[in-house]
Amino acid sequence: MRLGLDIGGTKVDAVALGDDLEVLGRARVASGFGPEQVVANAEAAARQAAEVAAAAGATPLESVGIGIPGIVDAEAGVVRHAVNLGLEQLELARHLEQRLGAPVRVENDVNAASLGAYHLLGLDGSMAYLNLGTGVAAGFVNDGAVWRGARGTAGEIGHIPVDPTGVICGCGQVGCLETVAGGGWVARKWGGDAALPLVDLFDSADAGDERALALRAELFEGAAAGVRILILTADVETVVIGGGVANLGARLIDAVRDRLDELARVSPFLSSLELSARVRLVPLDRPVAAIGAALAGTVPETEASWRS
Amino acid sequence: MRLGLDIGGTKVDAVALGDDLEVLGRARVASGFGPEQVVANAEAAARQAAEVAAAAGATPLESVGIGIPGIVDAEAGVVRHAVNLGLEQLELARHLEQRLGAPVRVENDVNAASLGAYHLLGLDGSMAYLNLGTGVAAGFVNDGAVWRGARGTAGEIGHIPVDPTGVICGCGQVGCLETVAGGGWVARKWGGDAALPLVDLFDSADAGDERALALRAELFEGAAAGVRILILTADVETVVIGGGVANLGARLIDAVRDRLDELARVSPFLSSLELSARVRLVPLDRPVAAIGAALAGTVPETEASWRS
Repeated sequence: MRLGLDIGGTKVDAVALGDDLEVLGRARVASGFGPEQVVANAEAAARQAAEVAAAAGATPLESVGIGIPGIVDAEAGVVRHAVNLGLEQLELARHLEQRLGAPVRVENDVNAASLGAYHLLGLDGSMAYLNLGTGVAAGFVNDGAVWRGARGTAGEIGHIPVDPTGVICGCGQVGCLETVAGGGWVARKWGGDAALPLVDLFDSADAGDERALALRAELFEGAAAGVRILILTADVETVVIGGGVANLGARLIDAVRDRLDELARVSPFLSSLELSARVRLVPLDRPVAAIGAALAGTVPETEASWRS
Repeated sequence: MRLGLDIGGTKVDAVALGDDLEVLGRARVASGFGPEQVVANAEAAARQAAEVAAAAGATPLESVGIGIPGIVDAEAGVVRHAVNLGLEQLELARHLEQRLGAPVRVENDVNAASLGAYHLLGLDGSMAYLNLGTGVAAGFVNDGAVWRGARGTAGEIGHIPVDPTGVICGCGQVGCLETVAGGGWVARKWGGDAALPLVDLFDSADAGDERALALRAELFEGAAAGVRILILTADVETVVIGGGVANLGARLIDAVRDRLDELARVSPFLSSLELSARVRLVPLDRPVAAIGAALAGTVPETEASWRS
């Protein structure tokens, strides 16, 4: 049995995974803030999920994988910088190995979700996971393993400017992809106090609200731009869209494919790349990030990167 | 001795390479147009370069590599589509193997130049070669071999739009990177009848011409954008700038580095990626594309791609 912990800004989602990606146990607790709380809460979530799995007859614990937002040194098992959780240079793997008695691997949350999406969709070859979350970033998986790039920063496409006339991004540049396709930015631009700002945005657009239509079109354009950047630059076979914005489901993916088809109609070059056929939505009914974290826990020592 | 043929739109540049990338023989002939001329002229250039090398005591011919613009099926040795040379589905490798009696490999011209740049600069790990030629495209090299992507189209970043308020690109989209950083577009926008339009542009900018200053700034911005796209997406260790525009030398590379440093000053995130330190200029005093073609002729059967 393998444990996967998806440690988010507010909650930890823990799954105990059996064979064939079957979830045998699950638990959710608050993430906490600062190293003591985050470690303690992660341990609690792990134990709870493991207990449920044991009651269901799961095999003994083999490994633990963690997906966490921020700058992660996967080789060292160290969370170097995670502002939302109040963590700096936390040796998360070592702490949890001591408490849980199994090997622990730590992975950036987007990379973990990438692994989850890849395996849940039964993909092979190369894939980029385009995370439209609060921010925008991509993770790469090739032949089943996370692919990091030379310095571990592959996929930071949220900070590629796409509109020189756009807004100033948190990173300091103007018109970054994240400012038009990131859930945080879109929600902030839309405003209001709906519990689900993007659903409210889409409902308003469907009802004909001009401002909503414009903002939503910008989001579709941005998502399509992200797919285009990933395929034209890295030529991955598949791009899977995930993250909070992806919970919009068909309302998002159909429109993104329509936009890619529209571009293909004006550009024979783009048409030859079959962009809309190569983009998919993450499965919305599975805990993709937590399952991916569990898979990250079992990654062999030799990982895919430019250097291997 | 290995032969390398850089078949361009107007001329073939042939080099006979000894050990340590030493050029032992060289020849230049017109490329010709259409399959019969292109094959015959390539053979003539190859023989001329080989003769010079033989007279200099080179070892017997081992392999032939060709770099050619257009859509190339490297595995099959077929030039599927090269408009400027009037070629469609030409089995170039087979024809030249029959005439020259040595194994022949055919590679896209940007990929060939990428190999040349990588080895001439003594690089290791991962590199993207940003070709600022008539158009804009990139080639990837990792651990000494060309890296193609899933469908062989990795690096087509010239058709990533960077300015939604820009001009309509030949590919049908608006504001592609190629329209601001490609030599063809920049020369066309500048106009005039100078023999070297970009030199004329840079000289006019240095003299304070407003239109020249604006166009040149757009080129610098575009080149910097290309470097940023390659590193943020694919996280290559090094980006080498080459192609006709690169012949501007320090006038180009110094300004591109300055622009990247300027961006780093407004963005701690970009600053952490050390973009300006990771960009280099191709050696201007060597026949990079022809040498790269010769190296492409010796590539082992197992090449780097997403699938390996």
